[in-house]
Amino acid sequence: MIPLTLADLRQAQARIAGAVLATPLWCSEALSRDFGLPIHCKLENLQPTGSFKLRGASHKIGCLLAAGRAARGVIAASAGNHAQGVAQAALVNGLPATVVMPVGASLTKIAACRDLHAEVILAGGNLEEAKQLAERLAGERDLEFLHPYDDWDVIAGQASCGLEILAELPSTSLVVVPLGGGGLIAGVALAIKLQRPDVRIVGVQTEAVAPFRRFLVDGSLETVAAAAHTIADGIQVKAPGVLTRQVIARYVDAIVTVDDNAIAEAMVCLLERTRTIGEGAGVVSLAALLKGKVVPRPEDCVVVLISGGNADMTLVGRSIDYGLASSGRLMIVAVTIADSPGRLAGLLGVVAEHGINVRHVEHRRGELHVPVGMTEVILQIETRDFAHQRELLDHFARQGLDARNLLAGRG
Amino acid sequence: MIPLTLADLRQAQARIAGAVLATPLWCSEALSRDFGLPIHCKLENLQPTGSFKLRGASHKIGCLLAAGRAARGVIAASAGNHAQGVAQAALVNGLPATVVMPVGASLTKIAACRDLHAEVILAGGNLEEAKQLAERLAGERDLEFLHPYDDWDVIAGQASCGLEILAELPSTSLVVVPLGGGGLIAGVALAIKLQRPDVRIVGVQTEAVAPFRRFLVDGSLETVAAAAHTIADGIQVKAPGVLTRQVIARYVDAIVTVDDNAIAEAMVCLLERTRTIGEGAGVVSLAALLKGKVVPRPEDCVVVLISGGNADMTLVGRSIDYGLASSGRLMIVAVTIADSPGRLAGLLGVVAEHGINVRHVEHRRGELHVPVGMTEVILQIETRDFAHQRELLDHFARQGLDARNLLAGRG
Repeated sequence: MIPLTLADLRQAQARIAGAVLATPLWCSEALSRDFGLPIHCKLENLQPTGSFKLRGASHKIGCLLAAGRAARGVIAASAGNHAQGVAQAALVNGLPATVVMPVGASLTKIAACRDLHAEVILAGGNLEEAKQLAERLAGERDLEFLHPYDDWDVIAGQASCGLEILAELPSTSLVVVPLGGGGLIAGVALAIKLQRPDVRIVGVQTEAVAPFRRFLVDGSLETVAAAAHTIADGIQVKAPGVLTRQVIARYVDAIVTVDDNAIAEAMVCLLERTRTIGEGAGVVSLAALLKGKVVPRPEDCVVVLISGGNADMTLVGRSIDYGLASSGRLMIVAVTIADSPGRLAGLLGVVAEHGINVRHVEHRRGELHVPVGMTEVILQIETRDFAHQRELLDHFARQGLDARNLLAGRG
Repeated sequence: MIPLTLADLRQAQARIAGAVLATPLWCSEALSRDFGLPIHCKLENLQPTGSFKLRGASHKIGCLLAAGRAARGVIAASAGNHAQGVAQAALVNGLPATVVMPVGASLTKIAACRDLHAEVILAGGNLEEAKQLAERLAGERDLEFLHPYDDWDVIAGQASCGLEILAELPSTSLVVVPLGGGGLIAGVALAIKLQRPDVRIVGVQTEAVAPFRRFLVDGSLETVAAAAHTIADGIQVKAPGVLTRQVIARYVDAIVTVDDNAIAEAMVCLLERTRTIGEGAGVVSLAALLKGKVVPRPEDCVVVLISGGNADMTLVGRSIDYGLASSGRLMIVAVTIADSPGRLAGLLGVVAEHGINVRHVEHRRGELHVPVGMTEVILQIETRDFAHQRELLDHFARQGLDARNLLAGRG
């Protein structure tokens, strides 16, 4: 039983209008050219606090205040986006906020919550333990516990994102949405399907954590290994919502998955194509499109929802390299050459002939896996694509050089 | 003699309206909180082709076509943003475009121009040589040579950016603009000062290449060393415009400079605060604000113009690290410890006690600068700020450990 009507969603949108940004729906000329049909990015990464979570948190807090609740404040457990959304929504409403973050949460995210005046409690080795503590503290301190997704008020708040899409781009026919706990896709699917049942909604999970993988096929939820890990940590939700899955069962057309390589490539693509940054979880939708997991029809008008951009800066650089490697634009190759004058210069000459930029060279003498009298050179180089890499390796082979592509098998 | 009137600028804006994006003027809540006054970013990095250059190129081509010229096409010399702006503007107008890029131009930028159907000629060791070739080819092939900034039609095109700012945010009182050849600031200053002489316009150059450094003080232009280099390569213009400087002399209120460290920090700040990427040249304006080179008055409403976002992905990661180091959030420290079991574990224990994340550890035995019996550990670690770094170094000192901050002097 789904209790939300289109009128409820519009009321939620009106309630939070002053607190959230109607984010840009950005038609990427480059992506549209690549696919031969209009591709729009709904840039929730540009939302204050960096993700769509502000929508649901703002609406939930608004509802609590309207009901005369939450006088003592709110509490949430989160390692990231939900915490920031709650902190900001509470701050705007003059409420104290407490967020319980697992020990080891990123310094940036802790600082972001403190900047928003939230009390940050570092406790628990993982999100589940942090959540248990938050629920206990909610009781002890008379605080309202805010669930990140499995709450109709939260879902109604996220729906505002879907209302914006349809209002701005009525020709939308396919919407691709990141899927973790399901709050975002449930809201967006309701907002759209209650008006336009013909628009297709596709959810995207990360390969490593995909409880919904077969949900639309046979209703099953896949058990996720406790140690499962993905760079899309924002949707690394092992226990999907009970409420959200009702909406998903009814209104979502398909669910697909993408792996971490595809996600890193999508981060780079988003950076290059829109000059905006998406976190891993935020770009799974784009990854699904780029990897052909979602195939638009020729007449489609596509919206790719980029749900968040709170990527840790220290991780961004690594993801960029990962994405460059995955798309054939970065190569690391180990070449064994004779340890005599001029050989290194000759090797680099060959690289230059192929129009390849060198990023890093390591010349290792004395490595024990290399025969005496030989030396190993590790080249980190920038190539156009995989074909360009093969050209170089073929050239080395013709010269009789032993060259190993250390990233082989990535493509 | 400045031939442009406000009516000319409005006509230029109308001419290119369909070809360029009225980019978002983004009020950053986080920056506004930091400074205690409204800070807006004009995000020209979100312009198609990634920079404001599309405005001037579109207008110039529009004017040429209206005058019945450029039938055979256009040609430009550029290593980056101007090339892409010209290629895109020509493509939209169905004109062939040729761009001459210096040998060694980035693969990404070459590919971007080819994606826009431009003929790319790689020639010349630097921009000056590429320009000479382009001018020669313009004559031989009957192509129109498009100057990147020193052209009234180009300046009138860039002015549309200033018109947008004032139309959207009439309370603007201070605009901070990156300054290279001067096309952007000339256009923006005209657009604003012809309407609102009270609004202050500040230009920002990169410390290493600052011909305009004393221009507003004594009218002099500084000679720039041929070898001068900066990460703000987009404004690495050693020969400022003749036309642009007339406008600057009359309408720009101040010119300041920022160094590469400040620029890298600003790139990280922009990424974290707006989730968008700026190239070095694009964020010098933000760097000037962050470093107190531009000090707003308490009642100011500030616009920081982010002029472009075409940062090479392979450079972004490095800039991020650079920015993190410059702001005390990344530290590389070499610690000499006794080469006996347990010492490395103990060292890492101390790091963990301080709540510091480890990014990379290198354990070097056999380095010749370390006494026999000792070993050197290189720690790459994530800290909150410089005070946090000092805490750790003090702790090491109390333990009698020899620890060297390899990034000392960066702060």
